[in-house]
Amino acid sequence: MAQQRWRLDLAWRGEAYLGWQRQPHGPTIQQAVEEALERILSGERPTVRATGRTDAGVHAAHQVAGFRAEAVRTERVLMDGLNAVLPRDIACLAATHAPDDFDPRGWTRRKTYRYRILLRRARCPFRHRQVWHIKSGLDVDAMSRATGPLVGHHDFSAFRSAGCSAKNPRRLLQSLTCRVLDDEVHIEAVGHGFLRHQVRIVAGTLVDVGQGRTAAEDMGAILASRDRRRAGPTAPPWGLWLQRVEVGDGPRVSEGEA
Amino acid sequence: MAQQRWRLDLAWRGEAYLGWQRQPHGPTIQQAVEEALERILSGERPTVRATGRTDAGVHAAHQVAGFRAEAVRTERVLMDGLNAVLPRDIACLAATHAPDDFDPRGWTRRKTYRYRILLRRARCPFRHRQVWHIKSGLDVDAMSRATGPLVGHHDFSAFRSAGCSAKNPRRLLQSLTCRVLDDEVHIEAVGHGFLRHQVRIVAGTLVDVGQGRTAAEDMGAILASRDRRRAGPTAPPWGLWLQRVEVGDGPRVSEGEA
Repeated sequence: MAQQRWRLDLAWRGEAYLGWQRQPHGPTIQQAVEEALERILSGERPTVRATGRTDAGVHAAHQVAGFRAEAVRTERVLMDGLNAVLPRDIACLAATHAPDDFDPRGWTRRKTYRYRILLRRARCPFRHRQVWHIKSGLDVDAMSRATGPLVGHHDFSAFRSAGCSAKNPRRLLQSLTCRVLDDEVHIEAVGHGFLRHQVRIVAGTLVDVGQGRTAAEDMGAILASRDRRRAGPTAPPWGLWLQRVEVGDGPRVSEGEA
Repeated sequence: MAQQRWRLDLAWRGEAYLGWQRQPHGPTIQQAVEEALERILSGERPTVRATGRTDAGVHAAHQVAGFRAEAVRTERVLMDGLNAVLPRDIACLAATHAPDDFDPRGWTRRKTYRYRILLRRARCPFRHRQVWHIKSGLDVDAMSRATGPLVGHHDFSAFRSAGCSAKNPRRLLQSLTCRVLDDEVHIEAVGHGFLRHQVRIVAGTLVDVGQGRTAAEDMGAILASRDRRRAGPTAPPWGLWLQRVEVGDGPRVSEGEA
């Protein structure tokens, strides 16, 4: 029987999960989505692949994934079925028939990550574990100045975790901004792909700048050093949001980065 | 020893609570705040009074309360102390020294309630139990037209629950609006005080209008009937937010309503 290729647009709260990819020792988003599909696809057990991994605790306002299945379903029935059986902290935003050669990772054009900092004295019950709560003042102008040297095509070895398995440490950071929105500071990074912990280490280093522990002017030297010890701490996962994934209608023409 | 009068500005997620007021059979916001104060005030057990009650499951983006205590604390120490011991779903936004005759209920000028409807097919993991999820289309223009007859000083008997204990069913509804904000519909009601379930019954009736079960033009007749059975269902509590309470610097001059 012919298999249908599907695209899923997903969103989730990351607190309760060990990230996207299946793990032997705890719940993951991939596992939850695959188990939900098994329940609504007459026992088929498709493998679901996303445009990339996300870390434990990280949220996704939007992620794209794909799978193949033999069962015939309309788009609406598949989406409503998934939302009926998925855990409350994962949702299917859309389910659509995709071309046979659809490949979420290979077709990705841009990813936008947002790191959210709650900048005020009081906690917020509605954003618990959805923001990094920093009570004291941050010099957001200095943080904003410090973003400049990171934009572009660079070796980001200073901003990746020891456990990063990517062979090539070079990435194109298309934009990096830091701005105030009401009582939050948003650090937004746009690129095709990111190294492990890259956005969280950038956020941790920018907070060091905002709190005066690192000079904004040193950012270029930290990048050039390719030394992880020169950058700041890895910011907590619960402030990080995969905000938006843009997927094209065919394979991306490589620009040289992994 | 002299007692200090305090004003607390609070926020909470209502899901886990039976509303503001202490109950014999389950947790309430009042109880949680009083127990937190007892822990940080050397064993004093102050009674905390808010500007009014809220129902089980209802959220507060902002509520004002008051209490007296003998223990001497700076404003910042009291606020930080509360946030350190309160449950994660309740926060103290501010703690301030108040005049001796401070009376949250009597000094209230205006309350703004917001009823939030998520209007889209897919669930949202980040707004679970913070909005009323309605998948199918709502005629928001018709809902907006239907708000008109309710604004003003009226007998709202058609829009209060059977269990409402207020002697006077008249209230001044200063404004009532219905508007679309991204994927949400917000029904916002402003007044000095509200009857039990008033905003939720208004919301339920407006949704009846939006879904074509009630004509927008019938709203005036429903109000005039003073018959609860003529109005729509009581909308679920988790869509309701006490959005903002404005407290003056002295007793409110009565306008005749309770």
